[in-house]
Amino acid sequence: MPRYKLLIEYDGLPFVGWQRQENGPSVQAALEEAVFRFCGERVTLAAAGRTDAGVHAEGQVAHLDLPGAVRCDTLRDAVNAHLRPDPIAVLSAEEAPEDFHARFSATGRHYRYVILNRRAPPTSERGHVWHVVQPLDAEAMADAARALLGRHDFTTFRAAECQAKSPVKTLDRLDVMRHGDHIVIEAVARSFLHHQVRSMVGSLKLVGLHRWTRRELQAALEACDRARCGPVAPPDGLTLVRVDYAHPAS
Amino acid sequence: MPRYKLLIEYDGLPFVGWQRQENGPSVQAALEEAVFRFCGERVTLAAAGRTDAGVHAEGQVAHLDLPGAVRCDTLRDAVNAHLRPDPIAVLSAEEAPEDFHARFSATGRHYRYVILNRRAPPTSERGHVWHVVQPLDAEAMADAARALLGRHDFTTFRAAECQAKSPVKTLDRLDVMRHGDHIVIEAVARSFLHHQVRSMVGSLKLVGLHRWTRRELQAALEACDRARCGPVAPPDGLTLVRVDYAHPAS
Repeated sequence: MPRYKLLIEYDGLPFVGWQRQENGPSVQAALEEAVFRFCGERVTLAAAGRTDAGVHAEGQVAHLDLPGAVRCDTLRDAVNAHLRPDPIAVLSAEEAPEDFHARFSATGRHYRYVILNRRAPPTSERGHVWHVVQPLDAEAMADAARALLGRHDFTTFRAAECQAKSPVKTLDRLDVMRHGDHIVIEAVARSFLHHQVRSMVGSLKLVGLHRWTRRELQAALEACDRARCGPVAPPDGLTLVRVDYAHPAS
Repeated sequence: MPRYKLLIEYDGLPFVGWQRQENGPSVQAALEEAVFRFCGERVTLAAAGRTDAGVHAEGQVAHLDLPGAVRCDTLRDAVNAHLRPDPIAVLSAEEAPEDFHARFSATGRHYRYVILNRRAPPTSERGHVWHVVQPLDAEAMADAARALLGRHDFTTFRAAECQAKSPVKTLDRLDVMRHGDHIVIEAVARSFLHHQVRSMVGSLKLVGLHRWTRRELQAALEACDRARCGPVAPPDGLTLVRVDYAHPAS
């Protein structure tokens, strides 16, 4: 059973999220159906990040096993052909070692969150940014973000339904940069708790509004109390950009 | 009659273009209707660039006259409120001198054209890029583009229905840059002929495929013959980025 690693891009807007669910179309189900139409095989895809409804991906990684060997380019092109018109694309397919696991082998996950900070609503970026009308102090946000770096119990920034065994995670990067009307937040960690990025962004927004100081953000983190989290940011602005692996899959 | 200058952004996908037409919704009509709902006045907007169906704008400029003075921020916010849910936004409104004309006072127009050059189809960028599957040589395109710079008769790159008095234009900039899978083409001129940017991009694509040399592109230009133009690039990848004026409107 050769194993294949897929690099996947999608627009999260029309989906209930990565994971197959009863209540609507998922990215996983669309991909599994496209694989079935290509080779008649019912496969299960495992992904590095189980993105929520409305969250996008530029570099999601998933793996699947096929009963026989296929050319990687053929796999990519055929699955893409069968995905139409869903806004999902396989950017590349490559053979992977049999012990490669898209989720468990991942050593780093890179997310980007984009806030559109202006009076006027988004047009082309609708569904891909969080529109915040009040002026945000991006420098204060960047400074406060550094208080979250490192190894912490992130219970404050964890969704109630999170299934992770431990709330302790190591946040390697949380950069906040302003580019004109856009505030771009880049978060990197080996793994994240459910809603962790959106919870941190929602709290950083309070810092940007000068409602919270860096010290208050830090106190919220140290309280290890979900009730201390700011309002969770919407999914629209979030994109899974890249997943790292210690050894290349091929 | 105070005159106002509007800076406008829109997603061109759902529109027949800037200009009011019988055959579908236009950006102009949507804006004029929003102004009417705001102040009960039937106005006519004049724009710097009459973008075609499917062409986007980040920095379109238009002007209008109102019977009485209004606060610029109020004008911007009220028009935006009445534009919902159309993907059009007034980024700013400012008072302009009575001789300011969005179209005739413009001294420079900046367009960007984006090609997505990879096997996999676009997802989030659908409708905002030209998807070209065959590998393009962006350096050859960049080199050939320089042959079009300067003052020329651009008849070869002019749509049959173009209403400009003269086909002679001065092209100030035509840069081609590759960023990963994206090829970004930036074109700047005082003004362009109808379909000129898309015609130049379509011909540059032939250079990128090595079907045309720089010399052949130059020969096509010098022929002043529409039949010598490459296939015109689709509107999807085109965005009006900015319009320059000699004196600020305010």
